[in-house]
Amino acid sequence: MSDTYREMWRELDMDLEKHDVFLGTLPVAFGEVFLRQENRPAGMAYFDNALAEAHGGRIQEILAGKKAGRMVAGTFCVFAPEELIFAVDGISIGLCGGAQFTVPTGEQVLPRNLCPLIKSAMGFKLDRICPYFQAVDFLIGETTCDGKKKTWEILNEYVPTYVMELPQKKGAADLTLWEGEIHRLKEEIEHRSGREITADRLASGIKMANARRDALARLYRARWADPVPISGKDALLISQLAFFDDPERFTAQVNSLCDELEDRIARGEGVTRKGAPRILVTGTPMALPYWKLHHLVETSGAVIVGEETCTGTRYFAGRVAEDGRTVEDQVKDLARRLTAINCACFTPNKDRVEDILRLVRDARADGVIYFSLQFCQPFGVEGRLVERALQEAGVPVLRLESDYSEEDVAQLKTRIEAFLEMIAS
Amino acid sequence: MSDTYREMWRELDMDLEKHDVFLGTLPVAFGEVFLRQENRPAGMAYFDNALAEAHGGRIQEILAGKKAGRMVAGTFCVFAPEELIFAVDGISIGLCGGAQFTVPTGEQVLPRNLCPLIKSAMGFKLDRICPYFQAVDFLIGETTCDGKKKTWEILNEYVPTYVMELPQKKGAADLTLWEGEIHRLKEEIEHRSGREITADRLASGIKMANARRDALARLYRARWADPVPISGKDALLISQLAFFDDPERFTAQVNSLCDELEDRIARGEGVTRKGAPRILVTGTPMALPYWKLHHLVETSGAVIVGEETCTGTRYFAGRVAEDGRTVEDQVKDLARRLTAINCACFTPNKDRVEDILRLVRDARADGVIYFSLQFCQPFGVEGRLVERALQEAGVPVLRLESDYSEEDVAQLKTRIEAFLEMIAS
Repeated sequence: MSDTYREMWRELDMDLEKHDVFLGTLPVAFGEVFLRQENRPAGMAYFDNALAEAHGGRIQEILAGKKAGRMVAGTFCVFAPEELIFAVDGISIGLCGGAQFTVPTGEQVLPRNLCPLIKSAMGFKLDRICPYFQAVDFLIGETTCDGKKKTWEILNEYVPTYVMELPQKKGAADLTLWEGEIHRLKEEIEHRSGREITADRLASGIKMANARRDALARLYRARWADPVPISGKDALLISQLAFFDDPERFTAQVNSLCDELEDRIARGEGVTRKGAPRILVTGTPMALPYWKLHHLVETSGAVIVGEETCTGTRYFAGRVAEDGRTVEDQVKDLARRLTAINCACFTPNKDRVEDILRLVRDARADGVIYFSLQFCQPFGVEGRLVERALQEAGVPVLRLESDYSEEDVAQLKTRIEAFLEMIAS
Repeated sequence: MSDTYREMWRELDMDLEKHDVFLGTLPVAFGEVFLRQENRPAGMAYFDNALAEAHGGRIQEILAGKKAGRMVAGTFCVFAPEELIFAVDGISIGLCGGAQFTVPTGEQVLPRNLCPLIKSAMGFKLDRICPYFQAVDFLIGETTCDGKKKTWEILNEYVPTYVMELPQKKGAADLTLWEGEIHRLKEEIEHRSGREITADRLASGIKMANARRDALARLYRARWADPVPISGKDALLISQLAFFDDPERFTAQVNSLCDELEDRIARGEGVTRKGAPRILVTGTPMALPYWKLHHLVETSGAVIVGEETCTGTRYFAGRVAEDGRTVEDQVKDLARRLTAINCACFTPNKDRVEDILRLVRDARADGVIYFSLQFCQPFGVEGRLVERALQEAGVPVLRLESDYSEEDVAQLKTRIEAFLEMIAS
């Protein structure tokens, strides 16, 4: 890395030594997981570079924005209404952690039997090896799950963490509560940014977020083709980068990649042979740089054609109406996303089963892998209902639970291969 | 057990064979844990008998009430507004599970890495060895934690389970939500019982619940004396029975026991020597028949002088105002308990630290054991903040995590003994 970057990291009070060790592992992992794939779309070059510059060029951009007065907010959930951040020309960064590297440090302040995503995120802050955590003005946490809800109290000791209360049901009273929470966040953002959120500005924010949703939905639709024009790994990487990249540039790049993919589809060209086993993944989010499951599946002869996860369809679900004329109406429209996103944090959450069954049909999946991060109780408990519904619909399903370590790789591979054989037979 | 009881259990569709095995283990455990204690208060005879008749005489009573048209509702949380059940002359039963015996069955439908309390409760229903689960008309679950919230969806397949949404914060919007939830439960109970909840009836219900709270608070105050007039084990047993017994009879018996305890205090008589090490327990609930921690502490030369738990002070915290004249006002009063009970399910939950420090002072505790059931994320994560606050206040604290099995008994005993030695030195 260039000396400019080192100077920037030092100014961000990062632990340079530890950061070197962390970054040092990534190129090899990336090379092995991504670059060895055959017939990758040319449009992936942008995203490969975005990943390479995630701790470099992108941070430079963000710091330049910050110097010019732009607010920088970190988020942890697809329910965080980024539209409000965009409305004040703020920079929004999705900050979940997907690396085993920082888990042991997270465990210094959190119980070991807690979701690795939360422990990794906490570890990134404590280890001071995440430039985003160092650059944010504040964080927007939420009460989606017990682990996150209680972790914000500790994280708040290290970086200001504002907590939104996400309701646990989807009734009228919940919509009212959530609408109030969005109003309160609006005030917080206006206060922090020093900019008023007018209807015009919020309309721009909504359009920006929707455009990104539309581009990702288009990408996911391209994956329905057989042969599939892009690997699951590449699609996952794009989804992961959506949380970090400049939204307008990202949207343009996804759309340009989709042009290429749609050409491939027209030509019948893909990254696998036609008829290769097609897998839908459903479950917990897969934060950067978590690629383990996708890599195991796609080096076993199958391809992943969709993710019903927070780093998949749930991220771009819930398009917000664009015709709200007043801030009041727009906040109501933002609140309505609550009903459109079917996360296991809600009870009941029956529509998630419908989402999965529809995705199985649309993406012509031969089987579903239900993936839970270890100790994730909402997705862990809900797994039984989803598994049964899939079985009743005649869809083969494999339940896997894992963490960020490499210890279970051989065991996972065996189970995945057995599942693929079962599907093929 | 008498043939009458067997016939009753058969009519409740219980698994008689398994139930025999379960009940068979209890007298020995009870004898060892309770009856060997020295100088027990005479008033414990009522509670010993209440435990012995928990699956017998008490069920007979409940079924007689049911035959006479009384509604029977099961609850799982100190936030369940039992006052509404009392208002329709209904029978309210606290249904948490505290036995390893039913955990393996619970694990057939729930993840293994879930709180044993939830798995045990689910197992009691699936195993059909809990006459209360068999006798209830419906259950009132709540969204206090992820594990319970998602488990109700499965439990509802076996017995109707109504779910209240407990807010996750304590702001004005949360009070509004909770007030609405109480109104909705009121309608549900009116519908199920066929009786209208009038202001007069609800006033009686509030008085009945408050009287029980007052009696338990009086019992807990008696434990502040040195020497302590009642063991922690006996106090815990009483708290556990509060969830099952007829509230008016129970209240009278607790008050009568308190008369005896206050006489003891006046005479300077106790169950331990004056100056014996005094321990406050804080953390997760201890449902019947979980006595492991108390037994280990009290057979190591110390005595437990209070529990800041849901089967302790949190159960009787939040006395409800009795001067509400309309149902509207009374529901508001009921909703206000939200702010008075400091459960780790809320964020933030700073007042719990104040509660613990006050209890340490009042009960003259020499040390605190922070006890979490395994995989309880709210209390697990919050432990760090409480531990630090106690350390800052100079109060020795021991953190323990355990489940319902006997596997860790030797290890726990070693740690408890080391802690008591440290306190003594």
